[in-house]
Amino acid sequence: MKKLLTLLSLSTLLFAFRADKPKKIIFFGDSITQAGVSPTGYITKLAGMLDKSKYELVGKGIGGNKVYDLYLRMDEDVLAQKPDAVVIWVGVNDVWHKASSGTGTDPDKFEKFYQAIINKLKAQNIKVALTTPASIGERPDNTNQQDGDLNRYSQIIRNLAAKNNLPVVDLRKAFMEYNLKNNPKNEEKGILTTDRVHLNDTGNQFVAEQMAKVIEQL
Amino acid sequence: MKKLLTLLSLSTLLFAFRADKPKKIIFFGDSITQAGVSPTGYITKLAGMLDKSKYELVGKGIGGNKVYDLYLRMDEDVLAQKPDAVVIWVGVNDVWHKASSGTGTDPDKFEKFYQAIINKLKAQNIKVALTTPASIGERPDNTNQQDGDLNRYSQIIRNLAAKNNLPVVDLRKAFMEYNLKNNPKNEEKGILTTDRVHLNDTGNQFVAEQMAKVIEQL
Amino acid sequence: MKKLLTLLSLSTLLFAFRADKPKKIIFFGDSITQAGVSPTGYITKLAGMLDKSKYELVGKGIGGNKVYDLYLRMDEDVLAQKPDAVVIWVGVNDVWHKASSGTGTDPDKFEKFYQAIINKLKAQNIKVALTTPASIGERPDNTNQQDGDLNRYSQIIRNLAAKNNLPVVDLRKAFMEYNLKNNPKNEEKGILTTDRVHLNDTGNQFVAEQMAKVIEQL
Amino acid sequence: MKKLLTLLSLSTLLFAFRADKPKKIIFFGDSITQAGVSPTGYITKLAGMLDKSKYELVGKGIGGNKVYDLYLRMDEDVLAQKPDAVVIWVGVNDVWHKASSGTGTDPDKFEKFYQAIINKLKAQNIKVALTTPASIGERPDNTNQQDGDLNRYSQIIRNLAAKNNLPVVDLRKAFMEYNLKNNPKNEEKGILTTDRVHLNDTGNQFVAEQMAKVIEQL
Repeated sequence: MKKLLTLLSLSTLLFAFRADKPKKIIFFGDSITQAGVSPTGYITKLAGMLDKSKYELVGKGIGGNKVYDLYLRMDEDVLAQKPDAVVIWVGVNDVWHKASSGTGTDPDKFEKFYQAIINKLKAQNIKVALTTPASIGERPDNTNQQDGDLNRYSQIIRNLAAKNNLPVVDLRKAFMEYNLKNNPKNEEKGILTTDRVHLNDTGNQFVAEQMAKVIEQL
Repeated sequence: MKKLLTLLSLSTLLFAFRADKPKKIIFFGDSITQAGVSPTGYITKLAGMLDKSKYELVGKGIGGNKVYDLYLRMDEDVLAQKPDAVVIWVGVNDVWHKASSGTGTDPDKFEKFYQAIINKLKAQNIKVALTTPASIGERPDNTNQQDGDLNRYSQIIRNLAAKNNLPVVDLRKAFMEYNLKNNPKNEEKGILTTDRVHLNDTGNQFVAEQMAKVIEQL
Repeated sequence: MKKLLTLLSLSTLLFAFRADKPKKIIFFGDSITQAGVSPTGYITKLAGMLDKSKYELVGKGIGGNKVYDLYLRMDEDVLAQKPDAVVIWVGVNDVWHKASSGTGTDPDKFEKFYQAIINKLKAQNIKVALTTPASIGERPDNTNQQDGDLNRYSQIIRNLAAKNNLPVVDLRKAFMEYNLKNNPKNEEKGILTTDRVHLNDTGNQFVAEQMAKVIEQL
Repeated sequence: MKKLLTLLSLSTLLFAFRADKPKKIIFFGDSITQAGVSPTGYITKLAGMLDKSKYELVGKGIGGNKVYDLYLRMDEDVLAQKPDAVVIWVGVNDVWHKASSGTGTDPDKFEKFYQAIINKLKAQNIKVALTTPASIGERPDNTNQQDGDLNRYSQIIRNLAAKNNLPVVDLRKAFMEYNLKNNPKNEEKGILTTDRVHLNDTGNQFVAEQMAKVIEQL
């Protein structure tokens, strides 16, 4: 009986302890996420919106990364860190590098590697949220060179989210809607980005707010 | 008095003669226009809609042509033919070949060569109509790889038309609207094209109808 | 004593049996290797040169594969097959797809994924041989579009072989030397390939002979 | 007799006058030629080697130009300047832009535009010299990404020179030979270029010397 009580206490203690331990969420991505941990970055801003006792946000972004680069380094950079959840944000370089260096990613392979990442995370019971690639040029009239491809790869990601029953932060859609309202001069940068791709201060705040919506689902 | 009558007769005769001579209109473009003179092509269909005594339609399309190829061969293929009017339809390869062989055309150079072609035609008092590039993929949800660029180059052409006070056959807009209505399954081909780019029978008919609208302005 | 003798006999039998079991060698690559298992393919020809009781050759080639595709499917297609040795032949698509679809592989990432494949194989005590990409165009005067890049990626592979102490089948060098001797008209195909890349009958025989030289080291 | 003397005098005067008027030579090209007129540029250095009373060197280089850009601006920038001779140096961007922006020039079109430029110059009795594109990367072991294509386009230019009976300054060959002797560490820049493409001081001097060899043929 005493033994049972002790076990119960211990168990309560453990649960209490686990409740106190913040959820570790890794943001896994490219240069946008690499910059996200700077003092004004979207991850830093998002952390400021959340209860620190409940969430520990970790940035694992590396410049130039495509989906297969995430797959290659996920054992060390993600699985070994024992996160509770992972937010994947990738796709800009997979599309962009087609034109800038001839080294983008074919859509079928983009999907295949993305699914392989999801599988590895799920196998470890890690929760996953997906993100669509926001922007390579902000002109809301659909005249940015990579608009068609970004829309396509975003659709692949939305389909993966549906298929795997995962939440998606639809930055592509959110950026388009924001620019339709706030970019009357059809500028290609300077609204949410500094250079068509990377976030300015408004962009970091905007992304943090979009991300906040799915954090509680993780 | 007799002299006057003679003059009048001659004048009538001349007018009659001029009225009998059809306007020569050259369609100047790429493989789409090359196929346009086939028995089921858009130029053949358009000719069937028009009064043959008023219009002589000539196709001068060559597969793979970009804007600078038109410029290079225009002296021989267009100016030497002494047309009354020219309908320019180019742009698909300028965009497409970026991805398929690394040999597309930069937008600033696209505009420069296009303007140079217009200048040469205007200098010979040849009337000019412009055409926007219709399609590299028919999916109406803007997920065709080259949609952004096709929209951009179409906008360059619309701006050139406005700047040079020329009529424009806005095939890009017309194809998009047609697919929004008639492509519910978001197919990339088979609606107006056989292969995302080249016209099927419906496409040839559709283009002929679009072209017919500006012919009387020429 | 009898027990000991029995054990010895059994052991002898096992050794004998193991000696009878042929070495399983997987050829891991792209469409060239996919075609290698056809009746006239290089793997089939190589098998015909070897003692079947000593070597079992298995082809695991998939068309369009680049180095990261091999990495993605190696657990299932290679490790799960428990091979004694693996011959890796990849690189043509990593270079070629830069120009043909904008989806080639950057040299630094080519090296990184290649090393990751080697590491996984070595960790399972599987022997490894590397192969340099032979040809995208056979003109021996170095005027094939991808010659510079093929030479560069071949050098990356030679360096990986040296660094990891692995044998290398230097097809790039062998093909160049063969063409210098046997391609006096500077043809881009038809000497060892049918289409600049894939092997004709002479090419399959030539590759089989080159491969044979390193098989005994595996 | 007096008349004859007058004629002789006039003739002498004319010859003297013609002898006094220097030959006007235009260097027609891209950014390398644009930089050629700087105080340390190859045109400036070449002018310093020549008798100023005999040669007037004029630079007409514009950054980013490909062969069709030269064709487009040759009426204004070359023919209107009434030169005695033109040295054409183009090709680097035609090759390079394939990989860097998807807007290079196909080899058949490169040849076609190049021949069209030669034709226009010859029609005005302007002497012409051709130049092969020197370098996009100086590694002498043929591992620079664009080596194959640069060799190919250089060969097209050599063939054009032969076909049109024109002198050629074979910079491609000269740079390769120089690097084989002077680039033992296989560096990609810093031998004759600052950045793989544009000339450093040694490069400007080297090009001036190569150009000097053909100037007297013009």
